[in-house]
Amino acid sequence: MPDLRKDPIVGRWVIVAKSRAKRPHDFERATHQRSATFCPFCEGNEDKTPHEIVAYRDSGNHANGRGWRVRVVPNKFPALEIEGDLEKRGDGIYDAMRGVGAHEVIIESPQHVVSTSELSEKQLREVYWIYRDRLLDLKRDPRLVYGMIFKNVGAAAGASLEHSHSQLIVTPIVPISVSEEMSGSREFFDYRGRCVYCDMIQQELASESRVVMDTPSFIAICPYASRCPFETWILPKRHTSHYENIQEYEIEQLARMMKQVVGRIEMALDRPSYNYILHTAPFSTGELEHYHWHIEIMPRLTNVAGFEWGTGFYINPVPPEEAADFLRKIGLESARSAKKPTSSGDERKKGTKKSRKSPAIMPSAKES
Amino acid sequence: MPDLRKDPIVGRWVIVAKSRAKRPHDFERATHQRSATFCPFCEGNEDKTPHEIVAYRDSGNHANGRGWRVRVVPNKFPALEIEGDLEKRGDGIYDAMRGVGAHEVIIESPQHVVSTSELSEKQLREVYWIYRDRLLDLKRDPRLVYGMIFKNVGAAAGASLEHSHSQLIVTPIVPISVSEEMSGSREFFDYRGRCVYCDMIQQELASESRVVMDTPSFIAICPYASRCPFETWILPKRHTSHYENIQEYEIEQLARMMKQVVGRIEMALDRPSYNYILHTAPFSTGELEHYHWHIEIMPRLTNVAGFEWGTGFYINPVPPEEAADFLRKIGLESARSAKKPTSSGDERKKGTKKSRKSPAIMPSAKES
Repeated sequence: MPDLRKDPIVGRWVIVAKSRAKRPHDFERATHQRSATFCPFCEGNEDKTPHEIVAYRDSGNHANGRGWRVRVVPNKFPALEIEGDLEKRGDGIYDAMRGVGAHEVIIESPQHVVSTSELSEKQLREVYWIYRDRLLDLKRDPRLVYGMIFKNVGAAAGASLEHSHSQLIVTPIVPISVSEEMSGSREFFDYRGRCVYCDMIQQELASESRVVMDTPSFIAICPYASRCPFETWILPKRHTSHYENIQEYEIEQLARMMKQVVGRIEMALDRPSYNYILHTAPFSTGELEHYHWHIEIMPRLTNVAGFEWGTGFYINPVPPEEAADFLRKIGLESARSAKKPTSSGDERKKGTKKSRKSPAIMPSAKES
Repeated sequence: MPDLRKDPIVGRWVIVAKSRAKRPHDFERATHQRSATFCPFCEGNEDKTPHEIVAYRDSGNHANGRGWRVRVVPNKFPALEIEGDLEKRGDGIYDAMRGVGAHEVIIESPQHVVSTSELSEKQLREVYWIYRDRLLDLKRDPRLVYGMIFKNVGAAAGASLEHSHSQLIVTPIVPISVSEEMSGSREFFDYRGRCVYCDMIQQELASESRVVMDTPSFIAICPYASRCPFETWILPKRHTSHYENIQEYEIEQLARMMKQVVGRIEMALDRPSYNYILHTAPFSTGELEHYHWHIEIMPRLTNVAGFEWGTGFYINPVPPEEAADFLRKIGLESARSAKKPTSSGDERKKGTKKSRKSPAIMPSAKES
């Protein structure tokens, strides 16, 4: 019998329907592969992007030249543009404003790598610092109210360039998904006097079944009402509503955890396309007791999420407990293989082979 | 400069960013093609599906044999199951219940056709009657509160079988997208005393720019805050909240309009994958003054809707005015070619060829 589960924040119900995982085509994966075409994000091609906004560079190097480690440029095809006034207007029952905002690209490495798992922890730390820098800079603009940072990896996740990069869209309105999180977590807080995310962290740590990783300052879980197989959230244990408040020790742990967790998802699902989204509070609010910044990672498996996209009504064929169990074990396997350097090649190969044999259907295979 | 537009019902903002349409890869289409594999939905293979729930048959034919015109069967891999109690329960901060409900498949033709545009108007009328029959039957079950009817065409829209069919998922909870529509339209009604959909129909008829088709009882529009290129809504002009209240003359016009509109979208975008969803009020409510049933059609173009899926934050590169204009003209062209039977072959060919040459980017081409 399938299960119906409710997301405690926004109230979205999800059907967790295990039996559907047996359909052989459910996990056709859109593997992200490296291609050999020209890349405007690689070091040496700085003149192929718009002028850089900021970059972390080794000393002695000049803007828009070589020698950078992380580089932020305006999106060449921006969804929103930074100049001008909002000109809010009505048109009968409709409301509109000009598309004022920012659309930036964070190029995460001078080398042509694709995924978070291929960056070093040092590189990831700089990426997470530069997220903070950009949010702090853009929130000074009174026209802008929200900064959404996300990363698309692989064509099925909407990536048009494969070179590892994140995007930042800064809007003059609060996106609806954010408003829903804000009001849902506010309602929970008004009723119980606690942050729903803090409660979730406590409950997940106590029950353990959905925990993928646990470090002193962060937890990675497959959420109770996961919308898709292997959806994974990374939550800081310290309550704060705005990502910009992140501390140095947290950046260190976040880098380590993101690299690990994305690596495990890639091993489990054979390098699927994926998105991650940084969920943080709007610029305009001070620190909020009811909201808690976090990162949501969504692997993009084809043939899942058909009409869900338009309806908010999700059917997930893999229970999060089984996804988390799988991701934990993959972690153990790779840790074990790392400890035995003599056989590590073999172990790794074995691990990969196993993961290629549709691990996602493993949970159901156990059943039959 | 891009435009930010607000959906007047749920308050979702959409970025209408014309300049992005110039990116050549934006309209890689996932064309739906006919394949030659075995099909369990074709006439003669009735024993390959679960036992039929209901069918419209020519007299003298038996259930689960040949001789049907439209046939409803349980989904072989149901997301929800009809037996048992809900057993609502809490688990700390989480809420769950058993996945009780119905998941049915409406097989729309005994012949192996794929899309709504390939069905005759007579067939479509029977499909829309049988939607009504199933909703009326299932709403008698006190455990169930909502019936969602939708159709996936093409792999990119989540279709796993290509034979033309719709699905009906009946749930013991109201899906979040429906709750949002209900509360948004309710708010509008409380403030202005009118139905937001009725207002929308009036305004669209007056301005004309987003109207695709207009018949005495229905209107087809590309909505003001379209989430994706060529999103199209079909609204009945007569206010009623529940699809089950549809009248015979409306079924006739709906069949004609759906066939036409889907046909035009397919000509414009070279047979894209698409979803449509029937939006109707929950079983449990009586007739509602603030809600208005309708159908939303979403063409599924790849590389559009990357992270939008998870965030409710949409970037649409084609303004709905230009999509509607394009769909209207395609209608005129095919009408013209139908009137000149001697040259119709040529005209049709021309029309098709033109549409293959990425018509979706036409609006931007005009600009430059």
